[in-house]
Amino acid sequence: MPSDTRNRIVNASAELFRRQGYTGTGLKQIVAEANAPFGSLYHFFPGGKEELGAEVIRVAGAFFGRLFGSIAAEAPDPIAAMDEFFSGAAKTLIDTDYADACPIATVALEVANINEPMRNATAEVFEAWIEQGTRGLMAAGLPQRQAREITIHMIAALEGAFILSRATRTTEPLQITGEALVCDLRLALGEPASRGAQRRGPTRRARPRPAATAKRS
Amino acid sequence: MPSDTRNRIVNASAELFRRQGYTGTGLKQIVAEANAPFGSLYHFFPGGKEELGAEVIRVAGAFFGRLFGSIAAEAPDPIAAMDEFFSGAAKTLIDTDYADACPIATVALEVANINEPMRNATAEVFEAWIEQGTRGLMAAGLPQRQAREITIHMIAALEGAFILSRATRTTEPLQITGEALVCDLRLALGEPASRGAQRRGPTRRARPRPAATAKRS
Repeated sequence: MPSDTRNRIVNASAELFRRQGYTGTGLKQIVAEANAPFGSLYHFFPGGKEELGAEVIRVAGAFFGRLFGSIAAEAPDPIAAMDEFFSGAAKTLIDTDYADACPIATVALEVANINEPMRNATAEVFEAWIEQGTRGLMAAGLPQRQAREITIHMIAALEGAFILSRATRTTEPLQITGEALVCDLRLALGEPASRGAQRRGPTRRARPRPAATAKRS
Repeated sequence: MPSDTRNRIVNASAELFRRQGYTGTGLKQIVAEANAPFGSLYHFFPGGKEELGAEVIRVAGAFFGRLFGSIAAEAPDPIAAMDEFFSGAAKTLIDTDYADACPIATVALEVANINEPMRNATAEVFEAWIEQGTRGLMAAGLPQRQAREITIHMIAALEGAFILSRATRTTEPLQITGEALVCDLRLALGEPASRGAQRRGPTRRARPRPAATAKRS
């Protein structure tokens, strides 16, 4: 059986989980969306929906993890990268009619207390994101603890902003949390803490600077 | 039929939505948990699960809204109130084995693109929370726009931290986002931006101060 059938099943599942959650997605709907024969699902995922669900979480998690990592590690300017990440997320929400947010969050909330293997899969993804973001911000010059704190805050704020933005059908929450995170990152990197990208001064090299030493003028 | 049966149905539903989501909760499970006859559900909620779901969102939303409002409006010290709110949320998560987080978030993600009346109910709750928090922070001396931005950021960070904390079964995300929000609020109110409650100086009166004027030393 061609392995691109497997990919189509995983991608269709990720899309459906994003839009309607894990519990509300049936196997028949998955194979229909994936344009795959029903038997192929159990061929590739003998454990059924739970095995497929864990694989979707891992695949989608790895994809988003690369995005988080890129905020600092692959970008010459982590502040601009953070800004673009939130702007890009807002644009994607509009383009997809507020459907295409995080493929992990809905499932994570649904399964946290009722399905331990699935909860573990979501925890592994979040922990990988936190590690990737932390490494990226350390490469930009932040000490380990602060890089980890900013990364966790960023992922939490992003996930929560997705909830508010999808519910209210406005990108305001994403825009506001993005600006706040950019502001925090500028402070942490020792740049002036002006709020909002459009009010930023020219980009300068990042320097390590603990947030705890930031003082008001 | 006694109206406390109605309350038991609403409370049991809120508890079940919190733990396993809206889609994964069946009406039979609700009446069993509520210790109510099956017919009573349709007696009080002729529209069935959707009408009940919207009522649960409104009731739970109003309860949490009072908490958000109290952060500034009813507290003499909004910074201490913000700090205690996140600490209290972390303690509740531990006490309830990481189940008892927000009763709105899971439902909001599940229904955002597939059930417009339910999405509207979640949007109304989030908008009410934003208004209550904004009024509270304005009462503490912040200008309207900044009060709204901090409130939205706080709700987003809290909701996202719940996702991360429940998935990873650690209160670290709640603790870190709480400290970051306290730090932002201190900056906004013109207090020194030391990170972490335990490193705070003595509490002073809040003064309005736009975040955009905060400068590094």
